[in-house]
Amino acid sequence: MYGRDNEEFKARRLRAVKADLNSGASVLARKALEDIMDYADACEVADVAELQVEITDLADRLSGARPSMVVVSNVLKHFVATLPDLPDDLKKARGRAAVHAEEVIEQVQQAQARAVEFCMNELTDGMTIMTHSVSSSVMQLFTACQRSGKQINAIITESRPGMEGRNLARYLNKLGVQTQFITEAQMAHFVVQADKVIVGADSLLRDGSLVNKTGTRLLALAAKDAGIPFWVLAESFKHSLVLPEDVVLEEMPEEELQLESMPNVQLHNIYFDLIPARLITAWADEQGVRVIFRSLAEGAASLPAADG
Amino acid sequence: MYGRDNEEFKARRLRAVKADLNSGASVLARKALEDIMDYADACEVADVAELQVEITDLADRLSGARPSMVVVSNVLKHFVATLPDLPDDLKKARGRAAVHAEEVIEQVQQAQARAVEFCMNELTDGMTIMTHSVSSSVMQLFTACQRSGKQINAIITESRPGMEGRNLARYLNKLGVQTQFITEAQMAHFVVQADKVIVGADSLLRDGSLVNKTGTRLLALAAKDAGIPFWVLAESFKHSLVLPEDVVLEEMPEEELQLESMPNVQLHNIYFDLIPARLITAWADEQGVRVIFRSLAEGAASLPAADG
Repeated sequence: MYGRDNEEFKARRLRAVKADLNSGASVLARKALEDIMDYADACEVADVAELQVEITDLADRLSGARPSMVVVSNVLKHFVATLPDLPDDLKKARGRAAVHAEEVIEQVQQAQARAVEFCMNELTDGMTIMTHSVSSSVMQLFTACQRSGKQINAIITESRPGMEGRNLARYLNKLGVQTQFITEAQMAHFVVQADKVIVGADSLLRDGSLVNKTGTRLLALAAKDAGIPFWVLAESFKHSLVLPEDVVLEEMPEEELQLESMPNVQLHNIYFDLIPARLITAWADEQGVRVIFRSLAEGAASLPAADG
Repeated sequence: MYGRDNEEFKARRLRAVKADLNSGASVLARKALEDIMDYADACEVADVAELQVEITDLADRLSGARPSMVVVSNVLKHFVATLPDLPDDLKKARGRAAVHAEEVIEQVQQAQARAVEFCMNELTDGMTIMTHSVSSSVMQLFTACQRSGKQINAIITESRPGMEGRNLARYLNKLGVQTQFITEAQMAHFVVQADKVIVGADSLLRDGSLVNKTGTRLLALAAKDAGIPFWVLAESFKHSLVLPEDVVLEEMPEEELQLESMPNVQLHNIYFDLIPARLITAWADEQGVRVIFRSLAEGAASLPAADG
């Protein structure tokens, strides 16, 4: 009968990942790998072959849980693809699988930390950075700047309906970052005060477009109109082979809008936005910062020379 | 001692107009004129000369109450400028002043109704109109369309922090208008479904730019990027001689953002946006609809021929 316990564990974790509307994509990817570690330790199996089937099955299911956050699927697929041969001893095999999940978490975190460092090196004392919603990479960027003595100011949004911007405000307040906190509606008014907009990513698509929290497209449009650079900070685990026409922008429960049900009114709560590549001026990842368009304020154009 | 009662009445009305964050500009202008009517009837004065001083003083004070909503100031100044000679009899004089306020209200309402009718004539059955925040003119437009048998669909926003969009949703639901209700953050995602964006106005400035509820500039940018016409529906009582660099965008209490006070975090609650003329494709007022830029979908360009 242990199969039922396994099913229950997997179904519960799947529900939890689907319902987690507060975690950013990188954090959710780490949580999914932690689920794999727990499951490798606790699932009820008779032998190593069954263990391998079970953890692969959980990884597959979690992979499909958050289609707008491709990093979740990417790290789980990477985990499965790089899973080493497990020892014959079941207890040791459980331990090896868990260690592998930890190694992948470590890889993702290192990639994120390197991307943050490259991005930080481009910032100078006194700059004002505007962001939208919450990205663990952007939080780390502010922390890294503060630690290295760079005084960076912030403009941040509350991010209806999840209101995750409130937690970012508390985080920045503790860090000692001078922060301006606004509603999404005020983004066009405030973007002119920023030296750069820097956002995280849920996914980076094949054609260079970005999937990120709803509202990011408006901020990108406002930044472009005001001539403010719009940067994306995201490790390459977020790269996706999906094209914009096939991307899934997840819609969350309409109850979050707190409006009563009415026969002629349809509530929408789409959590993600698609930002075309033409609105993005630079990408920062673990390889460095690639500036696509450099504004006059940032110095001369620096497109890499074509090969040959 | 009656002067104190007069002062109290005027101070109370001034506070009420300043604190009224739910009424649109046209509605607030009407309420200010109704205040004048009440005051003409009730203020404590010895003779007609004093009455004239008192109602002119109240009109002056209310004029300055809401600098972003120029229509309030415009109609009050129009009231004072067109106030006829009052009869010598105090009671009759009170009545004549009140009647004049009613006449101005009527003029404003007629101008609004004509603007709505011109705008409605440009709409065709099955169109989807997107708007932001609440404008009494846009509400009347939906009502007029429904009455004349034009089936128009709506996309509307909740409008944090005032959430006046919820009342618009209830209004459209009762009218039987098929309505999609979204957060501001989703505006760029949804504008592509609209045939036109139509918003009201708080003020129209001398250079053709618009002052309207915060978030309108983001919607105008998204509309332009998507090639969707962006129309402004507003009677000419909203015209202002102010230039964009001198405009006052009112900031409302930060408590509306419901975030605790923190030493390093400054909350902003600016209620109005400045939308440059280059983002506006048409103006509808009591003279007709002037299309500045006509998209291919709307037919050939129709700039009026220059004189001479």
